[in-house]
Amino acid sequence: MSTSTGDASVRSYVRGHRDELLSSLDEWLRIPSISGLPEHAADVARSAEWLAAALRDHGFPTVEIWPTGDGAGLPSVFAEWPSEDTGAPTVLVYGHHDVQPVDPLDLWTTPPFEPTLDGDVLRGRGSSDDKGQVVFHLLGLRAHLAAGDRAAPAVNLKVIVEGEEESGSTNFPALLTAQRERLRCDVVVVSDTTMYDRTIPSTVIGMRGLQCCTVHVQGPGRDLHSGSFGGSVPNPATALAELIAALHDDDRRVTVPGFYDDVVELTEQERELFARLPFDEATWLAIGASRATAGERGYTTLERVWARPTADVNGFSGGYTGVGHKTIIPTSAYAKLSFRLVADQDPEQLMKAFEVWVDGQLSPGLEGRVAWEGGGVRACLTPIDHPAVEAVRRVMSRAYDGANVLVTREGGSGPEADLATILDTPVVFLGVAVNEDRFHAPDESVEVDRLLRGAEAAAYLWEDMAQSLRAS
Amino acid sequence: MSTSTGDASVRSYVRGHRDELLSSLDEWLRIPSISGLPEHAADVARSAEWLAAALRDHGFPTVEIWPTGDGAGLPSVFAEWPSEDTGAPTVLVYGHHDVQPVDPLDLWTTPPFEPTLDGDVLRGRGSSDDKGQVVFHLLGLRAHLAAGDRAAPAVNLKVIVEGEEESGSTNFPALLTAQRERLRCDVVVVSDTTMYDRTIPSTVIGMRGLQCCTVHVQGPGRDLHSGSFGGSVPNPATALAELIAALHDDDRRVTVPGFYDDVVELTEQERELFARLPFDEATWLAIGASRATAGERGYTTLERVWARPTADVNGFSGGYTGVGHKTIIPTSAYAKLSFRLVADQDPEQLMKAFEVWVDGQLSPGLEGRVAWEGGGVRACLTPIDHPAVEAVRRVMSRAYDGANVLVTREGGSGPEADLATILDTPVVFLGVAVNEDRFHAPDESVEVDRLLRGAEAAAYLWEDMAQSLRAS
Repeated sequence: MSTSTGDASVRSYVRGHRDELLSSLDEWLRIPSISGLPEHAADVARSAEWLAAALRDHGFPTVEIWPTGDGAGLPSVFAEWPSEDTGAPTVLVYGHHDVQPVDPLDLWTTPPFEPTLDGDVLRGRGSSDDKGQVVFHLLGLRAHLAAGDRAAPAVNLKVIVEGEEESGSTNFPALLTAQRERLRCDVVVVSDTTMYDRTIPSTVIGMRGLQCCTVHVQGPGRDLHSGSFGGSVPNPATALAELIAALHDDDRRVTVPGFYDDVVELTEQERELFARLPFDEATWLAIGASRATAGERGYTTLERVWARPTADVNGFSGGYTGVGHKTIIPTSAYAKLSFRLVADQDPEQLMKAFEVWVDGQLSPGLEGRVAWEGGGVRACLTPIDHPAVEAVRRVMSRAYDGANVLVTREGGSGPEADLATILDTPVVFLGVAVNEDRFHAPDESVEVDRLLRGAEAAAYLWEDMAQSLRAS
Repeated sequence: MSTSTGDASVRSYVRGHRDELLSSLDEWLRIPSISGLPEHAADVARSAEWLAAALRDHGFPTVEIWPTGDGAGLPSVFAEWPSEDTGAPTVLVYGHHDVQPVDPLDLWTTPPFEPTLDGDVLRGRGSSDDKGQVVFHLLGLRAHLAAGDRAAPAVNLKVIVEGEEESGSTNFPALLTAQRERLRCDVVVVSDTTMYDRTIPSTVIGMRGLQCCTVHVQGPGRDLHSGSFGGSVPNPATALAELIAALHDDDRRVTVPGFYDDVVELTEQERELFARLPFDEATWLAIGASRATAGERGYTTLERVWARPTADVNGFSGGYTGVGHKTIIPTSAYAKLSFRLVADQDPEQLMKAFEVWVDGQLSPGLEGRVAWEGGGVRACLTPIDHPAVEAVRRVMSRAYDGANVLVTREGGSGPEADLATILDTPVVFLGVAVNEDRFHAPDESVEVDRLLRGAEAAAYLWEDMAQSLRAS
């Protein structure tokens, strides 16, 4: 492990190159690489080229722009820099170079693609999500090489920076599958997440998985007059409501048989670490524009969102829903559901169990059908005591002046789960963004200090992992 | 009561004037009085004028065309012919002179407004619903006057023929209220319904009432990301589904407290008469394009539809319901419900009880709101042993060669309930249409034989009621 002497040297290198980091970022942030808007496809391509050039400038011997979706998708950037150390572990850094749309424009203090430094706050689309967090790796790598007087990193370093993360990573799983050999690694380091709070350095250790479906219930062959038939034949809207109601028991647990069978329960250590995070229910409710918390009995709000699976109704529709009234027994109804999954739930197993359960819910005269939205995404979870998690917590602590780095999870799902599943490797998270950075919103920003701390942590990480992962 | 000798004379009069009935009807059916299409407003007015002239021709001393909705509605026709007999009861005949739209035109064998006689079947829009059933009253009245050699009917006869029945009778309750004094009567005879079957003469004794509402459930102030919030705050779509599910118990009875308190239960006599009606479940299901019957435990299908109240979901909507998926916790959801009511349920009482019940269903963080669609319509029910029902069954039996006239109810709701409620009078039903007449559908038709039997029954009715209602 590096000593505090080493730390002072890395820190001074990083702080000494603040202007270069800002200058790089200023160039990159001016490219409006909005992946969700087709008219910006050329900008996303330009953004990939900018990054490829930057990676080459930083010394990567192999840099490639990878088209996706047989050329119909937006490009990822791949780079690789083998270590000169025999037996060095291989690390893959993940980020993305595309950004969210910027509407409504009039809510921006300064134009979204004209990066503006306001004190220590850098404002601009992509400043924190995610170009800023990719750029801190570049500076971190230079600091790592300088501090160790190295010609190559201490780990075999690979980088994959996606161009479609903000538009659903549509083509990313196929790219991962096709390039599995070249992306092979011992651990993925994702830099696209937030810390719990700007004053509380923390690292993510897991994300929930996701499986979406639409449940259709078919009743009569056409809408029926409720005067002529009401009360005499099954109503598919009522039946669908009853099916949804039956999906949870009084403890707000999902009732699909076997749903919890493979769930990795929270460890005592994890619950204890979660509990150290300051949680203010009023703030939570304010952020969620909600008036009460609710959820599975026996778990705190953070545990519910981060570590417990759910069955959520995203929407439903059936029968007449316009102005006034049509007194009908509707012919059919449907609901869109999303299941948030946790480790080690298997989306395939859920699909089978849910279909059987749906069939069992419907009375004679009704027909159910479940249409799945793809094959689902598994949750990813790297245990707290995994050496790579310990390494991230150590290097963040060093960058944050010895702070105890806490752990969090994320309730959402992202390409991180694809990385874990398709590459069959643990995923850890080195991120320095926070909620106040306004991901996806007008006035997205970042504190430059946090980017520098991210660079510092990244600079420590390769040396640490070279030792700790080899040892494990 | 008339003797069978009298019957022969009435029948021969009616049958002898078949051509005149057809000729009148032919004129009237050519007027496309579609109340649901604004471009036919002038036709509805012409139809009212045609009827007013016909009523005058038949001897009514008072005939008036009543505008509705302060002139913005479509006209009703009123006529009055006082009896010369002291103490004669007053009867109000109800029908309507507007018709349904005719789309899709290409499914008609002959043009809808060119009445065509095909054997004994008269085809044309309005032939059975309802011009044919108004016209049989005109012939019946002439037969009544001829048979008794009368200068005026045996009852004080009033007629109200509406012009907006097929477009929801929007202005009819206000008209009834405004003209309550002039419409005052001892009984209303509605001729706008069907018999159970063309071979089974029957009379309706009641219709269900109706109360519609929209239940809104408000959750978070905006749609929330289900990854960030799923499982931690109440989901209004799930809550609405649970509310709908809680609306029925395992016996498919409505759970709103007090819902059944005022319900007039079926009498043994009525259940026994209903049971005599041939009921084929396969046919019922085929008509309703359904695959199974279902409903309140302890009742037959006909009892459920005719005599039991319901809470039907007409439709619901909430959250994202488009293509693909949006993984949200929706901000709100709503359902449209219709309650079919039976005698003596009070719509006002239901409104209060339901609102209280809804409030009790929702957990903290959710807000419910019930928006009512008007003040509701009460059910109407005239008991089997009411003298006016007995009179109708007697005269239909005579017109149908001594058949036992059975009783039915209707599951729907119509202006009949307004007549009963606003005029505060019993309503009985003399109708000779049947389901095969294709009300509202292409190729609407009627068998002329049934119109003549209707005329014959109407001819007997005034004499019968003059005696039976006076006696009661």
